[in-house]
Amino acid sequence: MQFLSDNAAAVHPAVWEAMRAADAPDSPYDNDAISRELDGAFTALFERDCTALWVATGTAANCLALSAMVPPHGGVVCHREAHIEMDEGGAPGFYLHGAKLMLAEGASAKLTPNGIAAVVDPIRDDVHQVQPHAISITQASEYGCVYQPGELAAIAGYARSRGLGLHMDGARFANAVAYLGCSPGEACSGVDALSFGFVKNGGLGAEAIVFFDTALANVVRYRRKRAGHLQSKGRFLAAQILAMLEGDVWLHNGRAANAAAAEIAAAAGDRLLHPVQANEVFLTLSAEERAALRAQGFSFYDWGVDGARLVTSWNADPDHVSALAKGIAAL
Amino acid sequence: MQFLSDNAAAVHPAVWEAMRAADAPDSPYDNDAISRELDGAFTALFERDCTALWVATGTAANCLALSAMVPPHGGVVCHREAHIEMDEGGAPGFYLHGAKLMLAEGASAKLTPNGIAAVVDPIRDDVHQVQPHAISITQASEYGCVYQPGELAAIAGYARSRGLGLHMDGARFANAVAYLGCSPGEACSGVDALSFGFVKNGGLGAEAIVFFDTALANVVRYRRKRAGHLQSKGRFLAAQILAMLEGDVWLHNGRAANAAAAEIAAAAGDRLLHPVQANEVFLTLSAEERAALRAQGFSFYDWGVDGARLVTSWNADPDHVSALAKGIAAL
Amino acid sequence: MQFLSDNAAAVHPAVWEAMRAADAPDSPYDNDAISRELDGAFTALFERDCTALWVATGTAANCLALSAMVPPHGGVVCHREAHIEMDEGGAPGFYLHGAKLMLAEGASAKLTPNGIAAVVDPIRDDVHQVQPHAISITQASEYGCVYQPGELAAIAGYARSRGLGLHMDGARFANAVAYLGCSPGEACSGVDALSFGFVKNGGLGAEAIVFFDTALANVVRYRRKRAGHLQSKGRFLAAQILAMLEGDVWLHNGRAANAAAAEIAAAAGDRLLHPVQANEVFLTLSAEERAALRAQGFSFYDWGVDGARLVTSWNADPDHVSALAKGIAAL
Amino acid sequence: MQFLSDNAAAVHPAVWEAMRAADAPDSPYDNDAISRELDGAFTALFERDCTALWVATGTAANCLALSAMVPPHGGVVCHREAHIEMDEGGAPGFYLHGAKLMLAEGASAKLTPNGIAAVVDPIRDDVHQVQPHAISITQASEYGCVYQPGELAAIAGYARSRGLGLHMDGARFANAVAYLGCSPGEACSGVDALSFGFVKNGGLGAEAIVFFDTALANVVRYRRKRAGHLQSKGRFLAAQILAMLEGDVWLHNGRAANAAAAEIAAAAGDRLLHPVQANEVFLTLSAEERAALRAQGFSFYDWGVDGARLVTSWNADPDHVSALAKGIAAL
Repeated sequence: MQFLSDNAAAVHPAVWEAMRAADAPDSPYDNDAISRELDGAFTALFERDCTALWVATGTAANCLALSAMVPPHGGVVCHREAHIEMDEGGAPGFYLHGAKLMLAEGASAKLTPNGIAAVVDPIRDDVHQVQPHAISITQASEYGCVYQPGELAAIAGYARSRGLGLHMDGARFANAVAYLGCSPGEACSGVDALSFGFVKNGGLGAEAIVFFDTALANVVRYRRKRAGHLQSKGRFLAAQILAMLEGDVWLHNGRAANAAAAEIAAAAGDRLLHPVQANEVFLTLSAEERAALRAQGFSFYDWGVDGARLVTSWNADPDHVSALAKGIAAL
Repeated sequence: MQFLSDNAAAVHPAVWEAMRAADAPDSPYDNDAISRELDGAFTALFERDCTALWVATGTAANCLALSAMVPPHGGVVCHREAHIEMDEGGAPGFYLHGAKLMLAEGASAKLTPNGIAAVVDPIRDDVHQVQPHAISITQASEYGCVYQPGELAAIAGYARSRGLGLHMDGARFANAVAYLGCSPGEACSGVDALSFGFVKNGGLGAEAIVFFDTALANVVRYRRKRAGHLQSKGRFLAAQILAMLEGDVWLHNGRAANAAAAEIAAAAGDRLLHPVQANEVFLTLSAEERAALRAQGFSFYDWGVDGARLVTSWNADPDHVSALAKGIAAL
Repeated sequence: MQFLSDNAAAVHPAVWEAMRAADAPDSPYDNDAISRELDGAFTALFERDCTALWVATGTAANCLALSAMVPPHGGVVCHREAHIEMDEGGAPGFYLHGAKLMLAEGASAKLTPNGIAAVVDPIRDDVHQVQPHAISITQASEYGCVYQPGELAAIAGYARSRGLGLHMDGARFANAVAYLGCSPGEACSGVDALSFGFVKNGGLGAEAIVFFDTALANVVRYRRKRAGHLQSKGRFLAAQILAMLEGDVWLHNGRAANAAAAEIAAAAGDRLLHPVQANEVFLTLSAEERAALRAQGFSFYDWGVDGARLVTSWNADPDHVSALAKGIAAL
Repeated sequence: MQFLSDNAAAVHPAVWEAMRAADAPDSPYDNDAISRELDGAFTALFERDCTALWVATGTAANCLALSAMVPPHGGVVCHREAHIEMDEGGAPGFYLHGAKLMLAEGASAKLTPNGIAAVVDPIRDDVHQVQPHAISITQASEYGCVYQPGELAAIAGYARSRGLGLHMDGARFANAVAYLGCSPGEACSGVDALSFGFVKNGGLGAEAIVFFDTALANVVRYRRKRAGHLQSKGRFLAAQILAMLEGDVWLHNGRAANAAAAEIAAAAGDRLLHPVQANEVFLTLSAEERAALRAQGFSFYDWGVDGARLVTSWNADPDHVSALAKGIAAL
């Protein structure tokens, strides 16, 4: 009974089907008919013009998007616990040619205008200090918390007022939209580029970088190839993404994962370290409690000395989820 | 009847089957059971110890391999028409942090010790000139020509004598081995790292970087993640590669593509611009002749003013191939 | 009466004299007779074999030294307020090709093994996290505090135990040695490369990178040229450095600046924010007090809301220093 | 009797005098009064608005200027024998973060629109090939040949028509203007940024990057610091440059060096390999002839098997020059 990660979950049947259907001769790279559908599909989804490029991983999506916003001598404000800072093996340093991540604070890994300003305001506008050029936020955050449209608007307003680009790491964008119940466009309003994740949510190996600023996309086209991320059989990536968008599979999957997490969260009660708004549950569990749960067959990661992280997948087995909820309640 | 490229050809059924079979929960990244089989599989194939890492594209494979051999202030000797120089959108400059490609000459895009020495020897060992650190060769070459073991030994000997690393771009390694009829190990003897291509030969989106020098692999593990090429569902890439190795699918596919090219080459006779040893046919065709063939339903790229490039795939339709051969013979 | 910085102070007469004497034809770059004396001069000074390269600035010295210790995918542990983090305009990101600065805490901008371990220990040895490859410390620190030989030995021991390189930013190394009263070699014992500063201490535009590990120097020779820091009339940089070493001008100058700071510190008493061990005085001064001192003709930088930074130069005017000390005492 | 290089020649007395005069307290970096005079001085010289930044070397000047014109995924067209390609230790790869030098042909190391187009035209506008973003030319060229205003206008027109930036490496700009007899502005008309060299012409360690496009300068301010080229005692660099501009010392020095080269060229007659328009003489000399001249006390570099390069300095001794001219005539 696996609650380690949504990262390695199964592939959704609709994705498999679309990939098989894509196995007909077509043009290589992103010149095929399927890849050419992406812009339209995302424009419809977000109800505003956008350009979308597929890549294989969230790290590539995040860093390629940022590489078009930030010059090598600039900086990106992100949360101290952001994925780009903590878990991408230094990829921002590589893709941004040495630009700097500027680490801000905020509860549950969410930024606020104040938290951002605390980093940005002390920077003198002189050449001795790296100047910020963009902000990157994560929707849902690394602690499974979601920016409300109003919170997002405040950050976007701050970004605009300072001339900073705004990037959203949406590795779990589906979970955020599922939680918010708003339109996809509202969940990323004011953002210049969104890394829209599918791999954690039923995809096999395809994420979309959605650009609401077309000029950025035109730079990233070159950067994607230069990074070795322009797959020659790109039609199989496009097919995955379209299959996830078709009939809102992405959203259904996000809801399913969220529901599983909510069930566990309800059982965890006061143990919760962060509000559970997406598909991750961070909770207090002593070493003995963790051992007890593991003895019952549950696998998950420790979180610090006295905690654990539980992640639910789009296809979480309801019996496993209930069992885990009961197991926690019974501790 | 498509002879444009092997790049976008169909996926082999064994690859599909293996991918579907891999759709069971396992550890993410390359910690899954399938990924862990790669080293053994390639060690058996090459009959010497090696470490293999999957990546999605040949560009990533080539540049990651080279990034472990060449410091940012160094250079790589390659052919003036090498893929890394001509067709990778500047990826070597990115992955090698500004290291320099040093362009050598050689018939049919093959290097020779003399051709390499003509580039290397004039370089003074002083800090004003970039110093070479590696050589990259392509097996089969960009013109579909193959290094014989003796030719390879001569280059490897030169590399060793100068303390240079040796990388082989094997985007069409299968075609080369199929042509040579030797063991896979002989076809890359003396090489430190091989980009072993599967995508052009029946794969979907997986290539292997095979390191005969384990220290290089240990650097590239970090570089792969840093480049956003460590896919979380890496088991699907490993599965593709193992499926291609299993029962020598890779070699059968290479032979099939070569045979198709050979049939066309036989019909082309004196028109051939390069010996046909793999799955590419470069031949003289006037604009009128090209138009005539295209009118018969054949699609292919122009090659210069009076030529064409025909590429055959692992699943080339024998009727199409025969028709093209006849069409050319009839010109 | 200027206490803003030692950065723009006058050039020592011995430096001018040596530069004029160097204005005779010789080989360009560092092939001249004067540049060739550097290794010997520093070897004598440090009483162990070393190789020294001149560069124009401390930023170049620091970043070139580190570039030979840290691969692009690695990291450098430094203090959160280190010059390389705060004041070099992102130069480490540039010179280290995107490697990461890992920020540690410590009183008065000095690192300790515990402070370093607090950063290093939580890093899992996997590819998702940047791995440390070096430590950089500043002697004297950005708050004018000095590592005692024992403190240095503890850090060097930690570095060795973790396989990390050790770099010392010695922009104010002279002040540190003057304070310690030990031999120059003791003040940088265990270090692999030292940025030995002269510009703040009477030089015009020359710093030395002193390598106790010759292999590093041989890499940096190439990197220096590649960074445009190999001046063709390098003899003028070498001449500055030799003039500063000759007769221990560097040490006399360091002592003079320290003495001036000590005089001010004695007057500041409880106002001191950090021990005064070099030529910088950080003290509590209210806005009114600062205004009062400025009205008396003293110029200096604010330090936060209620503080000031006073820096003394090698040629600080004793009357100005006494006047400032009195002015502070009288507040 | 030294004809090896102008690189290591003596410093002009006016430069020494200005440097000594600059040894008074002022603000650090480029905030001093002298540095602030540069924009005005160059605006007067070039008779159009410009912004000028000092740096220590020509390599830094060239690469910083280009770094503001060319993104990391782009390319720069330059001559196959350009200094940036041949002699800067890979600095363009470093400063431009892996952008590519695209090598064009042209007599005497001069580019022409046709030579540039031969490189640019075959590049498909797709992501597989690096796209050009700028052209770099050298005035006077690496073979001491000068672009006439008409030639320059043709290249500038081509650059504009393709949307490419235009950079001029003016390491020997003084020699070019001296030869042309035109205004300085005419000698670099149409150029976006000029590396104006002083070090080979009487300076000690200061070159100017002159931007006719102010937006570029504002980027390079950050890049200069990031490259460790913002010297804290920058007033000494500014002073050198102003001293060279004052009373047209730069032009007088250029004329003197040119005159010396012309005297030698006249003696060389049919031996000349390139027209002698600046201060370099490339001529045919057999090994025996070179030995004979060296036996007479002349030092110079071989140029290939049967040639030599003679470079004259601003302060070439007339007796040495006449002796060399006679020596060559007598061969």
